Amino acid sequence: MRDQSGIAMKNTPPEVLAFDIFGTVVDWYGGIRREVDALNLGLDGGAVALAWRDGYQPAMRRVMSGELGWTLIDDLHRLILDQLLQRFGIHHLTEAQKRHLNKVWHRLDAWDDAVAGLTRLKTRFTICTLSNGNIGLLTNMAKHNRLPWDCVLSAEVFRAYKPDPTTYLGVARVFDIDPAAVMLVAAHQDDLAAARACGLQTAYVERPLEYGPVQAKDISPHAANTLHAKDLLHLAAQLGC
Amino acid sequence: MRDQSGIAMKNTPPEVLAFDIFGTVVDWYGGIRREVDALNLGLDGGAVALAWRDGYQPAMRRVMSGELGWTLIDDLHRLILDQLLQRFGIHHLTEAQKRHLNKVWHRLDAWDDAVAGLTRLKTRFTICTLSNGNIGLLTNMAKHNRLPWDCVLSAEVFRAYKPDPTTYLGVARVFDIDPAAVMLVAAHQDDLAAARACGLQTAYVERPLEYGPVQAKDISPHAANTLHAKDLLHLAAQLGC
Repeated sequence: MRDQSGIAMKNTPPEVLAFDIFGTVVDWYGGIRREVDALNLGLDGGAVALAWRDGYQPAMRRVMSGELGWTLIDDLHRLILDQLLQRFGIHHLTEAQKRHLNKVWHRLDAWDDAVAGLTRLKTRFTICTLSNGNIGLLTNMAKHNRLPWDCVLSAEVFRAYKPDPTTYLGVARVFDIDPAAVMLVAAHQDDLAAARACGLQTAYVERPLEYGPVQAKDISPHAANTLHAKDLLHLAAQLGC
Repeated sequence: MRDQSGIAMKNTPPEVLAFDIFGTVVDWYGGIRREVDALNLGLDGGAVALAWRDGYQPAMRRVMSGELGWTLIDDLHRLILDQLLQRFGIHHLTEAQKRHLNKVWHRLDAWDDAVAGLTRLKTRFTICTLSNGNIGLLTNMAKHNRLPWDCVLSAEVFRAYKPDPTTYLGVARVFDIDPAAVMLVAAHQDDLAAARACGLQTAYVERPLEYGPVQAKDISPHAANTLHAKDLLHLAAQLGC
């Protein structure tokens, strides 16, 4: 079929667009690097950003395996931060400073196209987050950036982290629609593949600078995705907004 | 203390305003009456609205007592609707018609002051729902009315209905703040009393026509509330927005 924009789509247009957040909508690398560099700790902010993010998947696996009870990302971020400060020999930060630094994830800036793209997409679709970030983090981040979500969905709502099927199918359940009426939008092929296995449509967004200027990212198209977009304005155009 | 508006407040200003929805932000009586009347079933739409809403507390009690497992309000509304149609002798609606009618709760219109009041309040506070309505219902309703929530919180997130303390304390937990930094805004004194018992601030909103033009409502001030407002514009003024 072809939608109103004249671009071929493989499927019926979705009703709900669910967005991955870290990397897809906001620039975690740039935001963390900037705040860490500003602290003048003698650390390379970019390296801290990459190391902090690298700790995230193993920490979530500890929760999903049952080793840790249900834990919000704010608390996982803090566990990882404490390990990093230890590893880098930073011992002089106060508890208040560590709490503030840990919430840098709430203050990340959106990519330049995000607000304009989401605002266009919101005119035709229900737009929501589907992130492993907790609800408070995602709400503070939305307020910081004026991201116009219709609804903030999170691992916290479903008590499971992506890529658990509970999360992808949870979006369809919340809106009482078929999984195929939901499209996951993400800059990560593994997230999209897991959503596709649950019957969702998928849109890949490139974000070539997600890991900063040095660490390369493969942004080549995968044919299995419903759509492939350079950014959220390009996605809006493909979806007729 | 006095805030910027010059109106006396008993407490430090809140950070998060959590809104009851049915009756406080939207007019359930008017919306249901209008849709039921338009169906030409020979029923009094206003009487159906009151009877449908009357079934809501007993249905929730069946869930909270454990007699029913966890059930979304959409499904409780449907249980009550089926009983009402039976009682009123309406047997000719198709399943699709009943499903559509049941979702009238998603299509309720906001009171005239709601969007303007919330838009002003959003400039200074995080504004969220705290309703027994399910997330999909609240999101569809927000989209229908352009209600500018920062976040949609619901009994569905906390797996408990108001007045369970889990819900009021859940707002504070989500935002990692003290209960006293949350203000519940509602048109129902029992909801506000339960929130106050959890340490929240409370603002009463009058909504004298909540139950329609016939059934009277006591809108007299209770001294225990932090604020008493005619509507959301009046609340915004009192909160310096």
